[in-house]
Amino acid sequence: MEDDNRHDKDKAANPGIFPAGEPGQSDRRLEELSVDFPVSVVLPAGGTGERTGLTTPKQFCSLSGRPLISYTIQAFERVSWIQSVVVVVAKESMDLMADFIQRFQHRKVRVVPGGTTRHRSIWNGILALGEVEGFLPNSVRPKVVIIHDAVRPFVEEDFLIKIARAAKEHGAAGAIRPLVSTVIATTSEGFLDHSLERAKYRASEMPQGFTYDIICQAYQRSSEYDFDFGTECLHLALQYCGTSAKLIEGPPSLWKVTYKRDLAAAESIVKDALSKSTCVVTGGSAAAESFAGDLQKTTELNMEVHVVPDLNRDNSSKVLKEFNFILVSVNSFDLSALKSTLKDLEASNQAVLHPLVVIWVYLTTSDEPSCISRTTAEVKAFTDVASEAKLRNTLIYGLQLPRTQDSECWRRSVLKFAEITSALVRERSFALVGQLLQV
Amino acid sequence: MEDDNRHDKDKAANPGIFPAGEPGQSDRRLEELSVDFPVSVVLPAGGTGERTGLTTPKQFCSLSGRPLISYTIQAFERVSWIQSVVVVVAKESMDLMADFIQRFQHRKVRVVPGGTTRHRSIWNGILALGEVEGFLPNSVRPKVVIIHDAVRPFVEEDFLIKIARAAKEHGAAGAIRPLVSTVIATTSEGFLDHSLERAKYRASEMPQGFTYDIICQAYQRSSEYDFDFGTECLHLALQYCGTSAKLIEGPPSLWKVTYKRDLAAAESIVKDALSKSTCVVTGGSAAAESFAGDLQKTTELNMEVHVVPDLNRDNSSKVLKEFNFILVSVNSFDLSALKSTLKDLEASNQAVLHPLVVIWVYLTTSDEPSCISRTTAEVKAFTDVASEAKLRNTLIYGLQLPRTQDSECWRRSVLKFAEITSALVRERSFALVGQLLQV
Repeated sequence: MEDDNRHDKDKAANPGIFPAGEPGQSDRRLEELSVDFPVSVVLPAGGTGERTGLTTPKQFCSLSGRPLISYTIQAFERVSWIQSVVVVVAKESMDLMADFIQRFQHRKVRVVPGGTTRHRSIWNGILALGEVEGFLPNSVRPKVVIIHDAVRPFVEEDFLIKIARAAKEHGAAGAIRPLVSTVIATTSEGFLDHSLERAKYRASEMPQGFTYDIICQAYQRSSEYDFDFGTECLHLALQYCGTSAKLIEGPPSLWKVTYKRDLAAAESIVKDALSKSTCVVTGGSAAAESFAGDLQKTTELNMEVHVVPDLNRDNSSKVLKEFNFILVSVNSFDLSALKSTLKDLEASNQAVLHPLVVIWVYLTTSDEPSCISRTTAEVKAFTDVASEAKLRNTLIYGLQLPRTQDSECWRRSVLKFAEITSALVRERSFALVGQLLQV
Repeated sequence: MEDDNRHDKDKAANPGIFPAGEPGQSDRRLEELSVDFPVSVVLPAGGTGERTGLTTPKQFCSLSGRPLISYTIQAFERVSWIQSVVVVVAKESMDLMADFIQRFQHRKVRVVPGGTTRHRSIWNGILALGEVEGFLPNSVRPKVVIIHDAVRPFVEEDFLIKIARAAKEHGAAGAIRPLVSTVIATTSEGFLDHSLERAKYRASEMPQGFTYDIICQAYQRSSEYDFDFGTECLHLALQYCGTSAKLIEGPPSLWKVTYKRDLAAAESIVKDALSKSTCVVTGGSAAAESFAGDLQKTTELNMEVHVVPDLNRDNSSKVLKEFNFILVSVNSFDLSALKSTLKDLEASNQAVLHPLVVIWVYLTTSDEPSCISRTTAEVKAFTDVASEAKLRNTLIYGLQLPRTQDSECWRRSVLKFAEITSALVRERSFALVGQLLQV
């Protein structure tokens, strides 16, 4: 358990936006823990999100320009052994959901209308899984069904493997977490009756897994009262199938986006994950390479810095892995390299799920005013390129950086460059796109 | 209960950084719900914050440049009927805490060293309250002691009144919240044993209140085992004094900062509260007043916009209430109005607790390049003023705004100005201070 917790802590900061690990590692893990039976997912997303205090249901609230539920779908889509995801939404949200699926290019997903309660919605989703005809190509009736909340976007493959395997073995499995508060029983007059011994109890969380047969049987035998007022699928499996679920301690990242403040927390996790590294494109210039080297030595950037001369040939793989780019232009306010980089990025389709950041650095090595001051037309040309890229989810910011000869002065410039770049990459502000900042 | 919940939802977004309500309103409330007996607070803050995954204990983590615990102290300091706050910290944090108290000008606070467990720390705090000699001036032995967590910074006066009064009436009182997950009992083999009926149980939260006599008696009678392994003060009052605590449903804002993601959530709440309004200082110019009027009509700003000609005389009260200022300079890159406003802000001491934002707008009504393009020396002068103000927690950003004659073009400019201003005010970025942006 201790080991698990240590592991969890590291994971909490990583929403798994990046594919987990290197290929070699992943092969090894597949051997150790494989899922070799068909698994599908039901994602009830009919909630109204009253508790967030927002008018938009929380699963549709935007995190960096994309609805929360799209992150949750992505969490399942990137898992190779999951064959399909049924999203169950309120009838009035069917069109909105279909639009999201198209816009964010989700595959493996089918949308079905929900019922009046959570249990009715889940049951609709499971029934849809049974209709193999007309479903996704190559999709078969699943051996195991994973049920998850649309508002827990950070679930990871490791944990899904545990749930799927335990569900297959025991018929049912569910995530649990330690209780964060003491649980107390109250008298009818609102006074303390007694407090529970915290160590003996756990909070039941999601995901949960069931064999298809068990969950079908449980719902078929459920009463109207269960459908209307029940909340716990594990309880139905126990009551109607005699199946006692295997409980598995989950990481803190399973947490549920419940309040408005949780949206800020989720956005912060996404932004952290997108701000881990940057790729400096030097264009092969010695001045730019020297600057990139100085940047790699700075601790203020809080990011890994990769340096390449361009994004062609051997370096084109960077385009597919990186969310942040620093493009250096030395003594020339020429936007052609910027434009050609944008074409490469567009071709890679990288910006569909996350806004990309491109920091265009205008590095000057001369003190001449003609070199430093830009004309209105030049600034406008840059702003226009940025405005157009913004429509395709790529955020361009400009930074003018004079290469001073005084080494202390240059050290401070690199530091300031790093601070500004960190802030721009972290915030991914749409409002500041196209600004030409000064170091 | 329903009424309470609706009320709570509104409050959840407001950390009470501003004094609650207008004077008239507050007088009325004081009559309805007064606390006319001495109350002190014990704030155990000795935790190590393991769960955040950070090296700094979470109560000392920075939110917009100020440690979390300072927000919690502020929540009590602004309540007139609370006479003193005892903060209990680990011995090695005594100096750090003393430094915070000086830096953020906290009054009413005494710091005492903690014990090895939570209960020992609270007991140390309560003992310190008994030593009236040498404590704060005018402080007497409290009738009621409120115990709170240092990592729940958003507690509000309304709720503290409820707890204090219930504690005086019943001997003990505590905050409760509905359970967010089903609570389940597990078998020793890790399988589901049974699930509790959620409606019958509550989560016990903080703050809690006790009469001084009850909490002293409870701790005096507590065993070493209680001191080492107990977590729930309400339980000790029941066990050793036969006092059954009155339980009061608290708002979601009582939530505890536990994980790293919660720091982002807390910061977002603070930033929301600081971004509710802005004051436009026009200098009396007609062009600036017309611009301010257009800004008031824009919905993109998401802020209340107050307009004043200056911050003297009748308008000086703005300085004491406002966290954001927009200063308009028409056709003149003259920084003297900016400098004099900074003096007013500094005199008000407003920036001690929260960074102030000043957006300096250079509004040009002519198309001449001499008017639009700035010299390097002018830009440097502006940057220097901003760098100096940053040292005193005032964040200055510049925005060049050409007043175009074409009305559609001007409408777009106002919109863009509003977007950029919203972003700057919301983010309060230190890295972007002193930048001269373009609309």
